[in-house]
Amino acid sequence: MSPEITSVQMFGIKTPIIKSGDDIVQILEASLQEACLVPVDGDIFVLAESAIGTAENRIVNLASITPGKKALFLGEKYGIDPREMELVLQECDELFGGVPGAALTITKGILSPNAGIDASNAPDGHVVLLPRDPRKSSENIRKRLEKRYSCRLGVIIGDSRTQPLRLGCTGIALGVSGFIPVEDARGSFDIYGKPLRLTYKAAADNLVSAAEILMGEAGERVPCVLIRGAPVKMVDESPEMPTISMEGCMYFGNIIKCRKEDSEKGDQ
Amino acid sequence: MSPEITSVQMFGIKTPIIKSGDDIVQILEASLQEACLVPVDGDIFVLAESAIGTAENRIVNLASITPGKKALFLGEKYGIDPREMELVLQECDELFGGVPGAALTITKGILSPNAGIDASNAPDGHVVLLPRDPRKSSENIRKRLEKRYSCRLGVIIGDSRTQPLRLGCTGIALGVSGFIPVEDARGSFDIYGKPLRLTYKAAADNLVSAAEILMGEAGERVPCVLIRGAPVKMVDESPEMPTISMEGCMYFGNIIKCRKEDSEKGDQ
Repeated sequence: MSPEITSVQMFGIKTPIIKSGDDIVQILEASLQEACLVPVDGDIFVLAESAIGTAENRIVNLASITPGKKALFLGEKYGIDPREMELVLQECDELFGGVPGAALTITKGILSPNAGIDASNAPDGHVVLLPRDPRKSSENIRKRLEKRYSCRLGVIIGDSRTQPLRLGCTGIALGVSGFIPVEDARGSFDIYGKPLRLTYKAAADNLVSAAEILMGEAGERVPCVLIRGAPVKMVDESPEMPTISMEGCMYFGNIIKCRKEDSEKGDQ
Repeated sequence: MSPEITSVQMFGIKTPIIKSGDDIVQILEASLQEACLVPVDGDIFVLAESAIGTAENRIVNLASITPGKKALFLGEKYGIDPREMELVLQECDELFGGVPGAALTITKGILSPNAGIDASNAPDGHVVLLPRDPRKSSENIRKRLEKRYSCRLGVIIGDSRTQPLRLGCTGIALGVSGFIPVEDARGSFDIYGKPLRLTYKAAADNLVSAAEILMGEAGERVPCVLIRGAPVKMVDESPEMPTISMEGCMYFGNIIKCRKEDSEKGDQ
């Protein structure tokens, strides 16, 4: 391999099943040792939200939940267990509507089906809520790992999402620590020296999608992927995930306007 | 490193600037040799659509385009050069609406702002259209590379997309050859042995997002990333990219229904 070539390596870190109350950093340390891997400067850890939520005691026994009127109505409407629907309503900031099996919400500032509640990878009759504060969790994990391995690291808590009109899940970052999650390429130029038009690169989301190649939810027990060599900008803080407004969003802005016009024309 | 650990390696392949009419396979061969990289069984090549479009003579001089009435109207409405808007109308299958700078279309079966037309990475006053048939292009490139290196390979032609309410671009596969682009995990089980709820994994989109970590549009001239060790299912064909209907889409289905209900209630 030529010395100038850019390259990135990713390692899937197998762990025991994460249980409620586990210390995720201790588990990672043991699993890294098992894998004979020693973190180095600039390594990024991508962690599955379900593992972090579980360790943080965010598992809920559905039998303990009594759905209210609204949850009964919406659960029926969207084909979701009314007890889970009750949790969705408690967890989300905003609910838009739904398709069968998925109520579309904004939760912790991020577009999330069913408030990010995960019925897979939880014991029977239980669900896992999102980590209470993914950014804070990623920061705590990063600080402890950095101390343990004496190097600068990044941590992402990631989740799965579908994309519009697309079959299958890709990755999305819920919270990050230790690096810049969205790169601003304003002021950069294309190969012909012209200013770039697409000016932001979703570095953190790309890293989660990359990790999903190795993660697999199907019982492989790989809740962590270590990414080495990614050209991200390391910082000693935990930046907020930047979002855009509904009006500025290509998908929502369009459809909202589009439908509004339709209804004004009386087309429906 | 433990021998059982799963790992993936990615290499950014630097090339000269791709010009109209270039033979992309010859360029890749020379660039791989330069990088001292020899493809092996199961390697996946992710190629930027702008490079492929350019090589396939899909560069258009905007001065040669006379916008029609519709293009003049919509160009004004969405703040897009009317000549580019004319090309958007010619290229797309369907146009939904737009936000400033982006008309939302379905083009070659895929949701694409501005019909995927790329004004960056084209000479001044020119734009690059999407490859005419990304699936066919990826197949041709794969077959020639497989013959040259005597191994089974995968090829993806990838593009950049924003995600709903999210700042920054991630990857999307326009066409693939040599492997299964969306993995169907129906029949798989979670870590507790329960059937999985999220049953599809967008392997090809994840690979493009992973490649974007190294690709960079900002003049780095890395239009190709070679991904080694990805656990994808290789096939000697070029599967269509599966899509979902607007009604079944969490984003469009929701918003369409939501707006319909709003307008029925007379809320707007």
